[in-house]
Amino acid sequence: MKIFVLGGDGFCGWPTALKLARDHEVHIIDNHSRRGIDKELNSNSLTPIHSVLDRNTAALEQGLIIRQNNIDIAKDYPMFAQKVAEDKPDVIVHFAEQRAAPYSMLGEKERRYTVDNNVTATHNVLNAIVEHSPNTHLVHLGTMGVYGYSKEMGSIPEGYLDITVKETGSDASILYPTNPGSVYHMTKSLDQLLFQFYNKNWGVKITDLHQGIVWGTQTDETILDPRLMNRFDYDGVYGTVLNRFISQAATGNDLTIYGTGGQKRAFIHIKDTANCVKLAAENPPEAGKVRILNQVSEVRQVKELAEIISRTYGSNIVYHDNPRKELAENELEVDNTGLRSLGFEPITLSVSLIDDVRYIAEKMKENLNPENIMTSPRW
Amino acid sequence: MKIFVLGGDGFCGWPTALKLARDHEVHIIDNHSRRGIDKELNSNSLTPIHSVLDRNTAALEQGLIIRQNNIDIAKDYPMFAQKVAEDKPDVIVHFAEQRAAPYSMLGEKERRYTVDNNVTATHNVLNAIVEHSPNTHLVHLGTMGVYGYSKEMGSIPEGYLDITVKETGSDASILYPTNPGSVYHMTKSLDQLLFQFYNKNWGVKITDLHQGIVWGTQTDETILDPRLMNRFDYDGVYGTVLNRFISQAATGNDLTIYGTGGQKRAFIHIKDTANCVKLAAENPPEAGKVRILNQVSEVRQVKELAEIISRTYGSNIVYHDNPRKELAENELEVDNTGLRSLGFEPITLSVSLIDDVRYIAEKMKENLNPENIMTSPRW
Repeated sequence: MKIFVLGGDGFCGWPTALKLARDHEVHIIDNHSRRGIDKELNSNSLTPIHSVLDRNTAALEQGLIIRQNNIDIAKDYPMFAQKVAEDKPDVIVHFAEQRAAPYSMLGEKERRYTVDNNVTATHNVLNAIVEHSPNTHLVHLGTMGVYGYSKEMGSIPEGYLDITVKETGSDASILYPTNPGSVYHMTKSLDQLLFQFYNKNWGVKITDLHQGIVWGTQTDETILDPRLMNRFDYDGVYGTVLNRFISQAATGNDLTIYGTGGQKRAFIHIKDTANCVKLAAENPPEAGKVRILNQVSEVRQVKELAEIISRTYGSNIVYHDNPRKELAENELEVDNTGLRSLGFEPITLSVSLIDDVRYIAEKMKENLNPENIMTSPRW
Repeated sequence: MKIFVLGGDGFCGWPTALKLARDHEVHIIDNHSRRGIDKELNSNSLTPIHSVLDRNTAALEQGLIIRQNNIDIAKDYPMFAQKVAEDKPDVIVHFAEQRAAPYSMLGEKERRYTVDNNVTATHNVLNAIVEHSPNTHLVHLGTMGVYGYSKEMGSIPEGYLDITVKETGSDASILYPTNPGSVYHMTKSLDQLLFQFYNKNWGVKITDLHQGIVWGTQTDETILDPRLMNRFDYDGVYGTVLNRFISQAATGNDLTIYGTGGQKRAFIHIKDTANCVKLAAENPPEAGKVRILNQVSEVRQVKELAEIISRTYGSNIVYHDNPRKELAENELEVDNTGLRSLGFEPITLSVSLIDDVRYIAEKMKENLNPENIMTSPRW
């Protein structure tokens, strides 16, 4: 298949593009904004990120052909639409959104950038498909965070909730009512409504992958050459919780928990991100409504993660005031039968895997700037 | 009170600004885009639209002071934010969105303009409030069209639906699950999610008025001077159904119904638009969730409207294929107790009112271009 990977230069996009390139014709489309944000925040990936050219050369040496296109899909619609019209890809995998909740809550500029970039990017992708390649299957990276975490809604289904309307007593299946916790998560709720309408009106084939919090760094492909190495964000803005703990442990620092640590969240290893996207791309949905799949391997409490790492590496755990407006504790059960039915076998948290990540963190210790760890904004 | 009227140069905005100016300090903020769209579509208001300067002069002669600001709130955020910071308005009334469903469905360019303009405009307003004037009450013009029209949901409540979650048996009140019928209506669904989050996270005070289809032209203020006269759109893109029927009857043409005419829709007279916005502005909501009110006077079938006009003026009714994807027939009951509790007494359709509009249509007959009547796009 011919597959576009939008945002294929980023943390999830790059390893996914490499994975897909094993069996498919892959075109990355990216404006390299994530590299720019590192400069803007004066932060860095713990692992060195090689130039686009070096990455491509190294991939080619492994037999993985990646076609690179420097296009800003939010700002340069005509160029993007032309590319879609010329190539008519079988699948467009869409990672091209600002993806950090804390970044989206830093201030007015970041809120506005996140909404403008994410909504326009998604809407432009839908328009290019409708106008130029109506049979393209869109695979979008959504987030578990659109669901919110409230007990009365029960375990988290795959996108749709079965309800009874009290007034009429009728049953209905509705898009799960969203309750996002940040501007970033809100944009993914907006995306859902765009998908619903473009699917209903023009029959666009869409898979929306509601992904958990990603941890880990390397995949079977990124590990093949140092130039292929993936990002490892450990800072308070882009670093997800488990990677932050691991880098803290590896560099002899305390593990910092926001709030009680009683928050339950859904996690997935970066290898599984790439595997699941590949499964979804290779198995398009039936005609009908948008297919929503929960891309999640396991559910853990934040403090449970800290304890696993603390037990292994002897780190202290320290508690900080939670900078976010969120419940101190919540229940969470997540249905992931959709991807499992396509053959997904989740990688779950284990000491060996943490060791793998720890190896990177230790090796890259000299790159860690401790000042960047506690930079999460308050909201 | 000090009130900003965003989009105060348009069909609903202008009469509302005049009405508010009777008792309040009114600042219009508009980029005059609606005047530009007339040129783009080669269409026109049946009534002549006077220049901003002439309108202001005429208003002043009636003792109505209107402060005009030419700002594009979607494209020039810094200038808009500065205006909010300086004036700290008590209320911002937000009409500054592309408001025609058919326009939003003309093609790729119009779809993209509608989403980019409407989402960015609304999000910019919310950001200016959060940053510069957190006590401002935002009054937004939404649409009944976000609800969709499905029987099993029952009569249409004011924004929130009481449900039972089947899995848990728990009760919940959720934002009514939207089912928009056009890109325009979709943007109003997106607005709802922006409001929900900005209200939840920053406590922004918001009233979202879900308005029915507006008909009529003149209000107690626009009738005071010919230079104050409001728009009267009769074309297939911007003209709403009842105004189109009236202008067809007044100019000796057949009344054109799309589909069976069995579609039930909610209507409101332009005078009531202005009255309801004033009521909402003068009665801010309690703290807590977004206040959603249905701004609707009565529910009618489209063919019923045609028959009332046909009986009075002897016009023929002709049926055309429906260019829109919508149900041929639907039930519709709408709750409007919120605005009624604030004192709203709806003006309902009557022959005297139709006569009033007919008078305008006849007087302006020479401005009518029959080619513009059947220009609705197919979707």
